[in-house]
Amino acid sequence: MQSATTPNEQARAEDLDLLDRYWRAANYLSVGQIYLLANPLLKAPLKPEHIKPRLLGHWGTTPGLNFIYAHLNRAIRASDLNIIYICGPGHGGPGIVANTYLEGTYTEIYPEVTRDADGLLKLFRQFSFPGGIPSHVAPETPGSIHEGGELGYALVHAYGAVFDNPDLIAVCVVGDGEAETGPLAASWHSNKFLNPVQDGVVLPILHLNGYKIANPTVLGRMDDEEVRNLFTGYGYEPLFVEGDDPHAMHRLMADTLDTALAGIRSIQQAARQLTGGLMRPRWPMIVLRSPKGWTGPKEVDGLKVEGFWRAHQVPIANPRGNPEHLKLLEHWMSTYEPEKLFDSNGRLVPELQALAPAGDRRMGSNPHANGGLLKRELKLPDFRSHAVEVTAPGGAVAEATRELGKFLRKVVELNAEARNFRIMGPDETASNRLDAVFEATDRVWMEGIEPYDVHLAHQGRVMEVLSEHLCQGWLEGYLLTGRHGFFSCYEAFIHIVDSMFNQHAKWLKVSRALPWRRPIASLNYLLTSHVWRQDHNGFSHQDPGFVDLVTNKKADIVRVYFPPDANTLLWVADHCLRTYDRINVIVAGKQPAPQWLSMRDAITHCEAGIGIWKWAGTEAVNAEPDVVMACAGDVPTLETLAAVDLLRKALPKLKIRVVNVVDLMTLQPTEQHQHGLSDRDFDGLFTRDKPVIFAYHGYPYLIHRLTYSRTNHDGMHVRGFAEEGTTTTPFDMVVLNGLDRFHLAIEAIERVPGLDIAAAHVKQQFRDALIEHTRYVREHGEDMPQIRDWVWPTSAAGTTSREPGD
Amino acid sequence: MQSATTPNEQARAEDLDLLDRYWRAANYLSVGQIYLLANPLLKAPLKPEHIKPRLLGHWGTTPGLNFIYAHLNRAIRASDLNIIYICGPGHGGPGIVANTYLEGTYTEIYPEVTRDADGLLKLFRQFSFPGGIPSHVAPETPGSIHEGGELGYALVHAYGAVFDNPDLIAVCVVGDGEAETGPLAASWHSNKFLNPVQDGVVLPILHLNGYKIANPTVLGRMDDEEVRNLFTGYGYEPLFVEGDDPHAMHRLMADTLDTALAGIRSIQQAARQLTGGLMRPRWPMIVLRSPKGWTGPKEVDGLKVEGFWRAHQVPIANPRGNPEHLKLLEHWMSTYEPEKLFDSNGRLVPELQALAPAGDRRMGSNPHANGGLLKRELKLPDFRSHAVEVTAPGGAVAEATRELGKFLRKVVELNAEARNFRIMGPDETASNRLDAVFEATDRVWMEGIEPYDVHLAHQGRVMEVLSEHLCQGWLEGYLLTGRHGFFSCYEAFIHIVDSMFNQHAKWLKVSRALPWRRPIASLNYLLTSHVWRQDHNGFSHQDPGFVDLVTNKKADIVRVYFPPDANTLLWVADHCLRTYDRINVIVAGKQPAPQWLSMRDAITHCEAGIGIWKWAGTEAVNAEPDVVMACAGDVPTLETLAAVDLLRKALPKLKIRVVNVVDLMTLQPTEQHQHGLSDRDFDGLFTRDKPVIFAYHGYPYLIHRLTYSRTNHDGMHVRGFAEEGTTTTPFDMVVLNGLDRFHLAIEAIERVPGLDIAAAHVKQQFRDALIEHTRYVREHGEDMPQIRDWVWPTSAAGTTSREPGD
Repeated sequence: MQSATTPNEQARAEDLDLLDRYWRAANYLSVGQIYLLANPLLKAPLKPEHIKPRLLGHWGTTPGLNFIYAHLNRAIRASDLNIIYICGPGHGGPGIVANTYLEGTYTEIYPEVTRDADGLLKLFRQFSFPGGIPSHVAPETPGSIHEGGELGYALVHAYGAVFDNPDLIAVCVVGDGEAETGPLAASWHSNKFLNPVQDGVVLPILHLNGYKIANPTVLGRMDDEEVRNLFTGYGYEPLFVEGDDPHAMHRLMADTLDTALAGIRSIQQAARQLTGGLMRPRWPMIVLRSPKGWTGPKEVDGLKVEGFWRAHQVPIANPRGNPEHLKLLEHWMSTYEPEKLFDSNGRLVPELQALAPAGDRRMGSNPHANGGLLKRELKLPDFRSHAVEVTAPGGAVAEATRELGKFLRKVVELNAEARNFRIMGPDETASNRLDAVFEATDRVWMEGIEPYDVHLAHQGRVMEVLSEHLCQGWLEGYLLTGRHGFFSCYEAFIHIVDSMFNQHAKWLKVSRALPWRRPIASLNYLLTSHVWRQDHNGFSHQDPGFVDLVTNKKADIVRVYFPPDANTLLWVADHCLRTYDRINVIVAGKQPAPQWLSMRDAITHCEAGIGIWKWAGTEAVNAEPDVVMACAGDVPTLETLAAVDLLRKALPKLKIRVVNVVDLMTLQPTEQHQHGLSDRDFDGLFTRDKPVIFAYHGYPYLIHRLTYSRTNHDGMHVRGFAEEGTTTTPFDMVVLNGLDRFHLAIEAIERVPGLDIAAAHVKQQFRDALIEHTRYVREHGEDMPQIRDWVWPTSAAGTTSREPGD
Repeated sequence: MQSATTPNEQARAEDLDLLDRYWRAANYLSVGQIYLLANPLLKAPLKPEHIKPRLLGHWGTTPGLNFIYAHLNRAIRASDLNIIYICGPGHGGPGIVANTYLEGTYTEIYPEVTRDADGLLKLFRQFSFPGGIPSHVAPETPGSIHEGGELGYALVHAYGAVFDNPDLIAVCVVGDGEAETGPLAASWHSNKFLNPVQDGVVLPILHLNGYKIANPTVLGRMDDEEVRNLFTGYGYEPLFVEGDDPHAMHRLMADTLDTALAGIRSIQQAARQLTGGLMRPRWPMIVLRSPKGWTGPKEVDGLKVEGFWRAHQVPIANPRGNPEHLKLLEHWMSTYEPEKLFDSNGRLVPELQALAPAGDRRMGSNPHANGGLLKRELKLPDFRSHAVEVTAPGGAVAEATRELGKFLRKVVELNAEARNFRIMGPDETASNRLDAVFEATDRVWMEGIEPYDVHLAHQGRVMEVLSEHLCQGWLEGYLLTGRHGFFSCYEAFIHIVDSMFNQHAKWLKVSRALPWRRPIASLNYLLTSHVWRQDHNGFSHQDPGFVDLVTNKKADIVRVYFPPDANTLLWVADHCLRTYDRINVIVAGKQPAPQWLSMRDAITHCEAGIGIWKWAGTEAVNAEPDVVMACAGDVPTLETLAAVDLLRKALPKLKIRVVNVVDLMTLQPTEQHQHGLSDRDFDGLFTRDKPVIFAYHGYPYLIHRLTYSRTNHDGMHVRGFAEEGTTTTPFDMVVLNGLDRFHLAIEAIERVPGLDIAAAHVKQQFRDALIEHTRYVREHGEDMPQIRDWVWPTSAAGTTSREPGD
């Protein structure tokens, strides 16, 4: 059928014909990666020995991803757009690898994968092959900031990438499998936090190919009306592209993409010209319905494949062993007409090469997807200028996170112009007492703002949403595109993002081994509102186990800090904000607490990461102590010092050493962690054979696990969280878990051999004190005054002649 | 203003006036719980000493929760409805406690909290008080199956509760804070899995009071049009109740609730009369917009409180210390007119008592919220009849999870009539090779079903959705209402629900201490597609750390099993399905693997949980071995036995003991876990001083942590996952992590003292074999035939004279 066409239409049709060939080239390379070990251009008849022995990879999602990629190339070239491609569908690896190869990026990064038949063969062979590349989009994939393994985080990464990147468009393909996950379902609301003036934009493409591994998808089986309602309700303007005829689909996709991009442009232009009255716009999104395994075999062994879940992975199972399958594969690959796509040397024909954008506009080369390239150093104030004055140990009271908040306010101010620092938190920045930052910025908010609202603004740099998933994901996207950030969270609820932490740690591990990936800023957690001060919230808010998960990861990726007071917290925060390619976990309290170290001493102590607090102990010079009282964490430190105070008064001859641990990794053997102490240094602190009463913030097993190979590990007696305690008083929480001063002192007495009858008497006094405590709190609902008001005696033995932190 | 009213309208108005008083009573009791230590009926002027020293609890959400509760009471009485109340808003504790007290349930369960002034005082005092109850809805709260601590799971618990409960209505209040979380955002789609014939229904009430801790909420600031679109898109029929005038709101709420319940009834009736053509209905939901802290103080210290986030927690901060605050509190409480609500003895006046439903229709007494009351025993087939025939160790090959699937098919069949067993999985039941269950049932699916779809049905008992959150939450709700289930998941991705696991473990811990809470079926995880067989998926799919998290929990709650083959897996699965109030984690592979134990031996071995495999070792009778080769997990067991085979052939004089661990908890000291071995038994297996080469499935630290206090812990050399490996071959995965037969054999040689020069030669051979392996897989893309084809030699020394598992 022929119809009269205008020259414009004619040109467009020719463009789309070329685009279709480009798409076929990408599809061909995708199939080749899954199947072929040899004969990459099908110049000879396909034989079993050309087929890989283990067929891995996922075809189903790939043609759709290739389709989108090709169309984005067209749009980028047409309008010189700055686009990154976030590939949500897990195993779309072959597609993105194929496209970055076609556009030339792949060869620039991996020169051995040349743009000829030899390179094609390497490209095919390495895919899902030992020593090669994974089947999903990964750090190895050019142009990616998003690993395609665990599903749920594509959209939130995309939003993180475009905050403060006003010219950037993150096109985010959301598979209908991923769309069923919780984090993804919440991520759509990220548009309420995106400012059209200062931020770029995400163009989500919901790819409904209808099936997961072995099921239809929830969204895929919803009708257009329901899908339209859902996404209108999420605040988007959904545009539909639906069908299976490639030519009709090219036309529709090109038109729809033009409409969406024009819509974005006009929203941005309008918003950026406003002098007031900015409102949250209704951003466009695209709903693409195309068959799963599109252009693949329709049937295999008599069963439906294209447009069904059987196309999900490897649609033809056994071409190496089954001649029918081999023929089917050969036929399938030949439908792409490789001879029209590649010249006889295996090089993409020039008219197709011309379809890729140039230089950094190629999505595989966009520097935003290798954020370290764009990263500017964070400007940091002198943390010393925020010091809490501590003239003597215990001589001041402060809220550690409140002091940190003042430091962070300065960080916000110093980097306001660079617009490259954000603070994330699930509605807890003020509750975690970091609210000084609101003197420098506000919470970003694009919904309506009422006159009585407090610290809400379109330009805010603090991001608060009641979703740890969104906080974490936005921050990851922000860091991966070369910026800096800080995430504060309730300690117990950080477990919500355990799996996201895991995946980011894996990304960093793999990235660090790729020289072309430049270092990005570390992901910094502040875990506060911690287990020991959840007495008002109760058991459901108590879990210090995140660090157990963290310490499972590769040593060069993770750090865990337990600063015992405000000045040490300031040192640690400053340090973490200066590091790269790491995940730093800082655990610190927000409640008023005694301060132990002056800034000078805090620096000395933190630089070592661990040390003897001579001013707190009672040991003699040049002699071993009777017992080591060790502590990690602010509350354990407080209780340890109070225990020492009790013991000193009751048993003045007992020689006690106090060791405080800020950097938990110092406990590990030096072969296992760069920060680990040598055995000699460890023994120097903990002795080779004296009892160690270790008061630890979290689950005690972690300390055993970190120290099991140390000389004195038999002597390590660790107390920590024992899954006890609920709504009660702060001191009762530590008592219920046996981490309080009395239990610590009693254990010290019990572990030191050869103490006399006086010690037994003292022990009984401490036991009586515990009974008295329990009776008192049950009656009064608060702790006894002598507990609440306890302060470190500045006249204590040992404080005068030595400097703290010596 | 007066208007002509009909007698009906008059009666309704009187009903609603009474209802308003009931609501005020609940509000009064809620405020009393937060503030008062004495003077519960305000019979004397309020004084500072009447006020609690620590003010805890959350007022903001409470009046809305009370409003809903009162209206549900009316509806239940009107139509004898079977309703449970799921309270999503975290800290709504005072409201639900107040209501269960008013209806009499609370006193029945806690008789000391009497229905008089004395009981009122106890009720007030215990709230958020040492030795008392938490500020959120918790296991202690009658009528609850949902802890109000970590947000996100209210709706998914509600859906879990109503599956297979056709007469039950779970009214689920979703706060607008919780609505921002990922799990909640995905949970709305649960309606795609709810069958109106066989299941009950969830009536969601989205409570938009507009604010979180210190921010407006995303959904609260969306306009009605957008909210309507969103929930229409989710498949609901949203009905709006909006306002702040109590009387108008009562009228509107009563009408709307009647409309919603009538809608539910008519959908259910229609569906249950159909003989075919069942479609997913559009279920009603209610959007309730009411002020945060409704009926509380409008302003405090000149700042807006009612209808703002300042009402979130304790709206009047310091009535004990600030006379103005005290007056304000007294005035606030007096506006509820307690003298008209309670008689002079503090008993609710009879006309208000009459508003509560009777007996088990009271929401605090509904047995579905104490599922153990309704639980019927699961009928289990004889697992022995599913035994894989193993005539000699290694003499059969099977896929362990496929055998388990056949057993589960029988479980489904035997309990089909009782309708009390479901299997959950994120689209992986078939992929995890449990697909025999599809011979007995299908996947439940209420969207359209196409002719070519496979095993989809409205009545299916397998629930698959690409969200671990939904699988876990549905199962929790299902178990908590007295049913049974099984959750299979990729090992790495189970971390997605770490935090849900934590919270469920906490629920169980607290519940077990409450005699009135009856035991519920255990939550059973099968973690398969595990780390050692993710070579095709790569690094992003590799993480065996879930069990590290699990073992942090109270010993009486958790169990972890590593069955090494199919028959042991069958024993473990059968065992787990018989247990109560626990969380059982089973880690087992799905790939074809050698089978070690006959069913008889499997039973003996599993009952002990750990044991010496004499047939595998080379030790002499009545003599200690030179080395212990221990293993936990199917792949470590395979590699350990292959290592023993290598060593036996190369160094026939070496005396090796093989210990296999099925029940990981046996390694813990018996004081720490009921399953823990005594030191004597432990030493009997692991010796007191011989080297132990322990091949463990997960992160090696866990074994150190479990065994750090054992006699021979210095001798424990643990190999496990070292965060290495990516897309490669199965054997290369273990090689990259040093868990393969060669590394194990080399370490054995290195650890046994006094071996001769021949041993050094053997070690070099093994090292060469590793190099050869690496070369081979890089070239061929698959493992060497001698690795793939290795089988345990049935003629091996030691097999003939002893029975396996002796």
